[in-house]
Amino acid sequence: MITRMSELFLRTLRDDPADAEVPSHKLLIRAGYVRPIGPGLYSWLPLGLRVFRKIEQIVREEMNAIGGQEILLPALLPRAAYETTNRWTEYGETLFRLQDRRGNDYLLGPTHEEIFTLTVKGEYSSYKDFPLRLYQIQTKYRDEARPRAGILRGREFVMKDSYSFDVDDDGLKQAYHAHREAYQRIFGRLGVRYVIVSAVSGAMGGSASEEFLAESEVGEDTFVRCLQSGYAANVEAVITAQPEPIPFEGLPDAVVHETGDTPTIATLVDWANGADLPQFADRPVTAADTLKNILLKVREPGGEWELLAVGVPGDREVDDKRLGAALEPAEYALLDDADFARNTFLAKGYIGPKGLLANGVRYLVDPRVGDGTAWITGADEKGRHVVGLVAGRDFVPDGTIEAAEVRDGDPSPDGAGPLVSARGIEIGHIFQLGRKYADAFKADVLGEDGKPLRLTMGSYGIGVSRMVAVLAEQHHDEIGLRWPSAVSPFDVHIVIANKDDDARTGATELASQLDRLGVEPLLDDRKMSPGVKFKDAELLGVPWIVVVGRGWANGVIELRNRFTGKTTELAADGAAAAIVEQLA
Amino acid sequence: MITRMSELFLRTLRDDPADAEVPSHKLLIRAGYVRPIGPGLYSWLPLGLRVFRKIEQIVREEMNAIGGQEILLPALLPRAAYETTNRWTEYGETLFRLQDRRGNDYLLGPTHEEIFTLTVKGEYSSYKDFPLRLYQIQTKYRDEARPRAGILRGREFVMKDSYSFDVDDDGLKQAYHAHREAYQRIFGRLGVRYVIVSAVSGAMGGSASEEFLAESEVGEDTFVRCLQSGYAANVEAVITAQPEPIPFEGLPDAVVHETGDTPTIATLVDWANGADLPQFADRPVTAADTLKNILLKVREPGGEWELLAVGVPGDREVDDKRLGAALEPAEYALLDDADFARNTFLAKGYIGPKGLLANGVRYLVDPRVGDGTAWITGADEKGRHVVGLVAGRDFVPDGTIEAAEVRDGDPSPDGAGPLVSARGIEIGHIFQLGRKYADAFKADVLGEDGKPLRLTMGSYGIGVSRMVAVLAEQHHDEIGLRWPSAVSPFDVHIVIANKDDDARTGATELASQLDRLGVEPLLDDRKMSPGVKFKDAELLGVPWIVVVGRGWANGVIELRNRFTGKTTELAADGAAAAIVEQLA
Repeated sequence: MITRMSELFLRTLRDDPADAEVPSHKLLIRAGYVRPIGPGLYSWLPLGLRVFRKIEQIVREEMNAIGGQEILLPALLPRAAYETTNRWTEYGETLFRLQDRRGNDYLLGPTHEEIFTLTVKGEYSSYKDFPLRLYQIQTKYRDEARPRAGILRGREFVMKDSYSFDVDDDGLKQAYHAHREAYQRIFGRLGVRYVIVSAVSGAMGGSASEEFLAESEVGEDTFVRCLQSGYAANVEAVITAQPEPIPFEGLPDAVVHETGDTPTIATLVDWANGADLPQFADRPVTAADTLKNILLKVREPGGEWELLAVGVPGDREVDDKRLGAALEPAEYALLDDADFARNTFLAKGYIGPKGLLANGVRYLVDPRVGDGTAWITGADEKGRHVVGLVAGRDFVPDGTIEAAEVRDGDPSPDGAGPLVSARGIEIGHIFQLGRKYADAFKADVLGEDGKPLRLTMGSYGIGVSRMVAVLAEQHHDEIGLRWPSAVSPFDVHIVIANKDDDARTGATELASQLDRLGVEPLLDDRKMSPGVKFKDAELLGVPWIVVVGRGWANGVIELRNRFTGKTTELAADGAAAAIVEQLA
Repeated sequence: MITRMSELFLRTLRDDPADAEVPSHKLLIRAGYVRPIGPGLYSWLPLGLRVFRKIEQIVREEMNAIGGQEILLPALLPRAAYETTNRWTEYGETLFRLQDRRGNDYLLGPTHEEIFTLTVKGEYSSYKDFPLRLYQIQTKYRDEARPRAGILRGREFVMKDSYSFDVDDDGLKQAYHAHREAYQRIFGRLGVRYVIVSAVSGAMGGSASEEFLAESEVGEDTFVRCLQSGYAANVEAVITAQPEPIPFEGLPDAVVHETGDTPTIATLVDWANGADLPQFADRPVTAADTLKNILLKVREPGGEWELLAVGVPGDREVDDKRLGAALEPAEYALLDDADFARNTFLAKGYIGPKGLLANGVRYLVDPRVGDGTAWITGADEKGRHVVGLVAGRDFVPDGTIEAAEVRDGDPSPDGAGPLVSARGIEIGHIFQLGRKYADAFKADVLGEDGKPLRLTMGSYGIGVSRMVAVLAEQHHDEIGLRWPSAVSPFDVHIVIANKDDDARTGATELASQLDRLGVEPLLDDRKMSPGVKFKDAELLGVPWIVVVGRGWANGVIELRNRFTGKTTELAADGAAAAIVEQLA
């Protein structure tokens, strides 16, 4: 079928929409692919829907290729199952909740682990029925605090979510790797630049997890990678290289000093550089030589608040995201004045490991605080610090914690080189959930030995609607979109830039021929100036533009590549075949 | 791709589910096509989703063929637009309403006239942009009071809804007829038996409207038709044949009688038959000779309650649906005791036209109460009735109303013969909305003369998910489903009913050959008894069943037709080609 611009439901805009910040948002609005109807809520117009469907189909094909079976669950879900897993509460304000006319509670599904688990439990009862891989391509809802960047973070969006069900860990690993490879094929076919980063699984629970991040400056996720080895991880998942233990022999004893009014790292370093310390005879003291102890209170789900101290080198801040991920599922808060008043042994600004441990406070340190490292730190009395306090000798922490910020130049955990940070957009996420949901719903089947066997699960998501924006974000220039051919709304954009009836007829005939050859043409048959048409063609971003213009009289048409900008002249006679060849 | 039953996510059930009443519901559950997850909420399992997608695709093709352009709107919608048209209120409890984290009101779209109107208004501004036909295939939500019959009436369901936009009435009529014909093609391709009935448009507003009803005993819609002429209408839309006016000359004068305690039609008829009335010398009085006056109070949107009396022949009840449709958008209620107490001129049980009209009560009558018809009716005093009261002579009603029940045997409005009633399921609905929504949103464009022109709209729906149940309802027998080939989840169901490895290999090879020839095979390769497999094949309802059984040793396989039950023997050699030929 030939789509004619004169009939296509499309109006392009000259100006960027006022509220659009990122290029994909601006261009998708200007080019008439989507329209906002409320915060984080978008309508897909014909061009946008075509791109969307092409992405959906590629995802579907690759999921089918790894034995995925497509099903479709409702978006409107009764509360009960989400109560069982506590996600009704855990999701907080992100969950859209509503009641029906009888006053029963419902939610709009943000993800479907619960219902998939119940569905499989409802149908299958024997180990023989597994492995099983199910998926859906379905509309999801999250009441984002700040819906932003158009369809990059909407409140109604479409995801492909799949779930694997296995009777043993080995099966889960196979399912995980099959999805990992399928995702690589999908993103490869879509033409998206991405990295796979180690991730912590957050509210989803479970053990192993990786994220697929599309490289983009406008991404909300920060990740780090080592350009030498290819190691990449979410900031929350970066593992700090732990130093080799240093032998204690020869290390000077710890000495307590009167340090005056030095409650901050800066004032402490100043004092130390004026104190003529023998350990620092040949170099100045820096913040990295100090050990900063942050006091928190932490509460496990259903538990009581308990004190926790986190020790990090004084030159680093604690990263909230890393701290939160490390403590999850516990929640945490900083101590308030009342807490300090209740715990009189805490000398604010002068807290040290010895006082913490002597008073039974749980004490976790950054992995850099390894055995044999010596520190300037608090001596648990106002105006006093200790110098040369050696980890493992003078104090033994309760363990390590990945809470300190990650910085460009930090060594990669694999030792291959420095880490550099970059921003990305989450386009896929794969989890080994393990038995979290199977436990919640007692999803057992009969094993080969006749005994019940608990299922183990994986969960795997791809943002299908978001991918439209991601591709627009990665593939555009200052004048418009540039779609990878696998997802372009049309294969060829034919511009009639010649008023002669003969040229118009020829262009239409070319469109028909291309259509018959399986190439989808968009024909700009509007009665407008060639300039307006060229601008629209560049904005819409179909990768190949055919111009039927002045050359028509001489039997020549032009073929332009939207990516390279290169223009080729083609004989009008036999042009369809030549174009098909160019596209292949 | 070959789908193997050994891997397919499917468990068939021997017994009907406890809560299922209608055959399609029972069979779709037993055959593993859908699963309930809450009242009116269903998951689509692999077989069900395949049927669903085939229906969707046929609908899409035919909508594209009439120039429909597919777009996709959100299901989650801000309140504002529905406030403008008052549907936020009008929908009552049927609307799912919710709030986001900021306390703003949203709804789950039950239908999308508002947003389509706003979308078109937002893009287009000139008469040159029209005609325009847009559609979507999208998930809708209605909080039904009584979700029933599985996916026949769910609370989350998928509809194709299209909307036409034109600058004149002629354009609207063309769009309406294009949709009507497209719907006929769609339902023809799907293999559904249906009738087109005249309909009133209910809450949708607008003028001309027809419903497509699938004939089915379990349908919720009653319609009547004339088998002689093919006239068919929704009960709400039946037009009563109005009698020719009868000349007044020679009609006896009306006479008031003391009728004693006769407040009901039955007691009044008894009195009349004992009263020796000259008009009834040659036949007995029946209820049809009496005129029953029903008192209501009616309120237009935003207005005050006002009295309304409806006069119908005493042998007919007032049909609530017809009355409601006739009065829409006003609401109505019967009078309560307080109302009677306030209007002392109303002699309950003895109310007559003259008292009503004398006291300024609006009085509408059934069309059968035509000029010159004579009635026995109330005389506005307790214990008194009037005989021979002639419409048009003794009283002049304020108009007619289609509120009396329609009965089998009533004459068809076209005069061709009697009406008979039947039940149906609404599968499609086409409306000429006119300017109702364009008025609400001031959707104007510039006309050819440079003056603003208000758009006129049509709205056209097909129940896509419901259609799966409708087809199951129309095409099944006592042992299972029987799908029309256009929507069957597979083309051929191959049953391996022979334990020899050789037969298994042969069956698998046959499946591969069919797959290559474009025929979708389902291969039952499970290690189960042939009896179980045959039962499942009959239950699942693929129209052609191939049995690779005992005959395999002699080079013979069987091809069974699930509709006719007829079995043909085929040579195993070249069976694929022979099957393709049979299917065509």
